[in-house]
Amino acid sequence: MATILVTGAAGFIGSHLTDALLDLGHHVVGVDNFSLGTRKNLASALGRPSFSLLEADVADAAFPKTFSPGKKIDWAWHLAANSDIPAGVTDPNVDLKDTFLTTLRLLEWMKANGVPRLAFASTSAVYGERDLPITEDSGPMLPISNYGAMKLACEGCISAAVEAWLERADIFRFPNVIGSRATHGALFDFIRRLRKDPSCLSVLGDGSQQKPYLHVQNLVEAMLFIVENAKVKRSYFNIGPSDSVSVRTMAEEVVAHVAPGAVLKFGVGSKGWVGDVSRFEYSTEKLRTLGWTPSLSSREAVQKAIKEIARENP
Amino acid sequence: MATILVTGAAGFIGSHLTDALLDLGHHVVGVDNFSLGTRKNLASALGRPSFSLLEADVADAAFPKTFSPGKKIDWAWHLAANSDIPAGVTDPNVDLKDTFLTTLRLLEWMKANGVPRLAFASTSAVYGERDLPITEDSGPMLPISNYGAMKLACEGCISAAVEAWLERADIFRFPNVIGSRATHGALFDFIRRLRKDPSCLSVLGDGSQQKPYLHVQNLVEAMLFIVENAKVKRSYFNIGPSDSVSVRTMAEEVVAHVAPGAVLKFGVGSKGWVGDVSRFEYSTEKLRTLGWTPSLSSREAVQKAIKEIARENP
Repeated sequence: MATILVTGAAGFIGSHLTDALLDLGHHVVGVDNFSLGTRKNLASALGRPSFSLLEADVADAAFPKTFSPGKKIDWAWHLAANSDIPAGVTDPNVDLKDTFLTTLRLLEWMKANGVPRLAFASTSAVYGERDLPITEDSGPMLPISNYGAMKLACEGCISAAVEAWLERADIFRFPNVIGSRATHGALFDFIRRLRKDPSCLSVLGDGSQQKPYLHVQNLVEAMLFIVENAKVKRSYFNIGPSDSVSVRTMAEEVVAHVAPGAVLKFGVGSKGWVGDVSRFEYSTEKLRTLGWTPSLSSREAVQKAIKEIARENP
Repeated sequence: MATILVTGAAGFIGSHLTDALLDLGHHVVGVDNFSLGTRKNLASALGRPSFSLLEADVADAAFPKTFSPGKKIDWAWHLAANSDIPAGVTDPNVDLKDTFLTTLRLLEWMKANGVPRLAFASTSAVYGERDLPITEDSGPMLPISNYGAMKLACEGCISAAVEAWLERADIFRFPNVIGSRATHGALFDFIRRLRKDPSCLSVLGDGSQQKPYLHVQNLVEAMLFIVENAKVKRSYFNIGPSDSVSVRTMAEEVVAHVAPGAVLKFGVGSKGWVGDVSRFEYSTEKLRTLGWTPSLSSREAVQKAIKEIARENP
């Protein structure tokens, strides 16, 4: 059993990961700046003796010198990041600080404290828009959002750290992740807006945007599978289902569950917003070859997540 | 004729570029923090009425708000960057500040001031070590130095800016560049060390490292060719010769020219230092297809550069 540092532990994905690592018998030190994360997400974890929680901003220039988890860390899982892509399109400093500088400061702290292993939450947004299918080893990398650009920047610095001192790094490229505790994304938005006005739901773009959706439980399973089974110094995997779902279908599912009878209104164009990748599908063949497939399809993940998010946002 | 901002104008490559842009009839505003650049490099440019020079640090958080070139800029060429790769292996903050933050701040300034076009000096180090041949569109991007990682980070943010507001960006991936005004690199090092001790030259690694070398004059020609001929919103090109030269050959050439008879001593291993890519060759087919090839081979570039650098470092 290892002692694991989880950054962004109080966030959407970080809290699910923390629960799973504790279930496996690991000791977990969670760190969060509570900008998006909440203690409520860690309600279960906080009741366990093998969990401790520290409040800190990993992006802080002082972090590498001042952070002290009180025990020797064997492994860091870096999930702290900006998760609001449109916010970073408006102001690059959001992703610079919350995504890139958190990674640089964490690496600096890890190097100084002899932490040999890192797992990192990257994104399919590193690829930008290009010809399908998108595999891990294909190029070019031309992200179309600062979110994707800064995640790519993190991957680069982690790769350089492996060359210089880090013993192992696992890089996970996430698709759209949905489920309980979500704080962002189309599904979350739709539900919140229908709660305010159950008569009508306006959708950005024409609804034709088609993307893969993964349930957070499946995502956590996939990450744990990869760190166990990928036996290389630098691993990097696309994680996702092999199918996708359209924004129109998603909106219809939300309406059916949350406000049956609400009128759906669509916009024009295939992009929801600047930096949105309108039709995304990437190959998950590498991960399937390693031996993992998700239990839920994109549509099933959407259906399960709608119930969970609707319950949490009454 | 355009009014062009050149960052890093007083540096090795920036000053040659500035001379060439002035020769083409453009107005050039040079900016430099003079950390590595010198007014001496701009001796010729400073005598021309179409050139002005400003001292500023583009990485400064205040730069986007305070920088004022005094005229409307049509086009920015961003060459300001850290050029000392080993320095960035020791301390990631060097490349963070001088390479990445300069790019982010410049983009911020350009956006606020409506500058529609950017040319950017990237590097072959974005590729890391992988199977040959390395083309622009192949992956993965796993740089092994912070230098390469931060240049990759810049490329990502430039790509995202093109999506959001920038009309055109040209990204040049440089090989090892040599010639007059150089301040770094194996060739420069060899010459400086032989000047100190003409009896002996010690080489890091076993001399088998094999890399493409491009003369700075050829590099400037290539960049000007690309911005003229690549008719896409985001262009990205490897620039280089189609051959390479070994460190051993380079060392022998330096000894023959600078200190005939000096004893050559080699180390062990194929890497000069951590973050060094020991055997690098990338495809320049894309640029050759566009219509440009260098006039000098790697060996000829080395021979020409030795004479120039030796003359400048008596």
